[in-house]
Amino acid sequence: MMEFSFVNPTKIIFGQGQIATIQQEIPSSAKVMIIYGGGSIKQNGIYQQVVDALSEHQVVEFSGIEPNPSYETAMRAVAQIKEHNIDYLLAVGGGSVIDGTKFIAAAAKFDGKPWDILAKAAEVTDALPIGVVLTLPATGSESNSYSVVSKLDSNDKLPFFSEKVQPKFAVLDAQVTKTLPERQLANGIVDAFVHVMEQYLTFDHGAKVQDRFAEGLLHTLIEEGPRVFAEPDNMEVRENLMWSATMALNGLIGAGVPQDWSTHMLGHEITALYGLDHAQTLAIVLPRMMHAMRQQKEAKLLQYAERIWGISEQDNNIAIDLAIEKTVAFFHSVNMPTRFSDYQLGEEIVDAIVEQLERHGMVALGENQQVTLDISREVLKASL
Amino acid sequence: MMEFSFVNPTKIIFGQGQIATIQQEIPSSAKVMIIYGGGSIKQNGIYQQVVDALSEHQVVEFSGIEPNPSYETAMRAVAQIKEHNIDYLLAVGGGSVIDGTKFIAAAAKFDGKPWDILAKAAEVTDALPIGVVLTLPATGSESNSYSVVSKLDSNDKLPFFSEKVQPKFAVLDAQVTKTLPERQLANGIVDAFVHVMEQYLTFDHGAKVQDRFAEGLLHTLIEEGPRVFAEPDNMEVRENLMWSATMALNGLIGAGVPQDWSTHMLGHEITALYGLDHAQTLAIVLPRMMHAMRQQKEAKLLQYAERIWGISEQDNNIAIDLAIEKTVAFFHSVNMPTRFSDYQLGEEIVDAIVEQLERHGMVALGENQQVTLDISREVLKASL
Repeated sequence: MMEFSFVNPTKIIFGQGQIATIQQEIPSSAKVMIIYGGGSIKQNGIYQQVVDALSEHQVVEFSGIEPNPSYETAMRAVAQIKEHNIDYLLAVGGGSVIDGTKFIAAAAKFDGKPWDILAKAAEVTDALPIGVVLTLPATGSESNSYSVVSKLDSNDKLPFFSEKVQPKFAVLDAQVTKTLPERQLANGIVDAFVHVMEQYLTFDHGAKVQDRFAEGLLHTLIEEGPRVFAEPDNMEVRENLMWSATMALNGLIGAGVPQDWSTHMLGHEITALYGLDHAQTLAIVLPRMMHAMRQQKEAKLLQYAERIWGISEQDNNIAIDLAIEKTVAFFHSVNMPTRFSDYQLGEEIVDAIVEQLERHGMVALGENQQVTLDISREVLKASL
Repeated sequence: MMEFSFVNPTKIIFGQGQIATIQQEIPSSAKVMIIYGGGSIKQNGIYQQVVDALSEHQVVEFSGIEPNPSYETAMRAVAQIKEHNIDYLLAVGGGSVIDGTKFIAAAAKFDGKPWDILAKAAEVTDALPIGVVLTLPATGSESNSYSVVSKLDSNDKLPFFSEKVQPKFAVLDAQVTKTLPERQLANGIVDAFVHVMEQYLTFDHGAKVQDRFAEGLLHTLIEEGPRVFAEPDNMEVRENLMWSATMALNGLIGAGVPQDWSTHMLGHEITALYGLDHAQTLAIVLPRMMHAMRQQKEAKLLQYAERIWGISEQDNNIAIDLAIEKTVAFFHSVNMPTRFSDYQLGEEIVDAIVEQLERHGMVALGENQQVTLDISREVLKASL
């Protein structure tokens, strides 16, 4: 195991009816900006629950955070924060709203050009405190320090990281997922699944607890994913999915182990160029990345085949092929396509994406920097 | 899943050579009391590493915390804290030293009789900050808010809980375990295993992530436990055991699920009366508690049998018997006895322990308060 330091200071408040508790979690003297997306929270009752809970707080609202939160929109929020002297941000939404809020929190306190936080990894030394009411279990952003923000005018989609933007608390009430469209549910399941895979499917490093926990999340997502469509009223299923998605990217399963993230890097470029949902890109890339890196990842692919899918095939190559097939079948079982052609995208995308990867310096990805541009090209071609 | 709120604010600093980092973790202006046990840390080099790391801090020492930390000793530390104006406690040891330090931290700031914290569950509203250098992976006390303290003059062994005594940081360097006697290693493995079982082996509640994580810890302890004796120089094995023990009782696997703890309650009384090590008592009680509660716990016992031991026996009773046998065999595989007779204790203990349980109000234990004094008696008799 590698050395690591791990702490997750976000207080998780889990369960039905827990949105009301934000009243106690946000200091009563705080001037709060409620940040959300396109307004679906006004139709499904979540907005009302939040407003009711904050009836004794001073509140302003900012809506319009996009599915891939943009720098431009975030900077409009920053202007309003300064105008209204806001000192607490409440993100009500999924990963995009939370990621956007993290950037807003950092930019509002940043000396200099906030774009440098993304473009130059400028250090974030201060940020407004953030609370979260999660509406879409998927990214894990509700209890980690990561954020991905896009710049509309240049097709850049760039990550930043700072413990200053880790949420103080996150309310996880699975009831809020009952009004989600099936596409968003599927996105969340696939996103969480691939988050686990990026931290798990590397090489054999002997860190057994991390492996077992990762496998536990994969099992849960595989068991509960299809059930959420078959049994939409089963709240237990929704709670298990919600908790899995949070645990998939809160630092725990990745502590002290190598991590891959090459599938994500390719995925980000696909979204930036063609607008596919984040999870849609992951479901396209992952199976072919598994195939392309099958030699380097052989030990872990065999462990995945056996422990997750019960594949006891003696021939290693056949076992790995079966495991990849099962992974694709799992994505299909939650109604998630796995090829570019499902989105009417053809061969022309390959050069364009490879060019973007090169432009962003993504020329040696993965746990051992072995995913070269040639391998990325091979993965993209195989995914058509 | 039940509602829950979960956060673990202890910063884990994991890896070889990490003791030196305490220099940065403890404020440089702090006046530190280093608290330890019987002095083994002076022979094995840990003491020197701690002293070197704190060479620029003001430091006093307090040694002599017992294997079951006593109220009496703790109160002597409190007197010295007041005398020297100590404002930071560094526990260097295993669960006993950490538990003792937690009580000291609370007692030093308590208005009134500190014994009331244990005897009357008096609220702890303030405590000195605590850091930990863990020397014995076992109890999980390094990253939780629990403590158990004994009163020598009355044979009472009583728990308390307060988030005020949760350690700020805990250094987990598995190298420190290389000089541990085999008995203490075995104690740690069994203690962690039973901690998991107390939170796992209840009834079917549908919280799948918590179940899978618990099972992951059980698998790891079962795989790595015997190896630490067979391959004492294998640092990977020691690291896996250390991380398992911490994860077994840091709030995570118990969040939102029912918990048992009846085995612990019986175990505490056995230690108080007969001085057996904590883990020794657990290994005696658990298998017969599993047997006594087999009807109430049937669904979970079958899940345990299948997922942990691969038992696919059709007859439920046979499957459960086999799973209990496997559990006993696992304890034996780490050289841990499982009967009172292994400690030259006979029938006379039954009445004495039941009387203690009654005196402490332990008359309806377990996740459904179904472990009556009669069942406790039955468990004790079956454990002779």
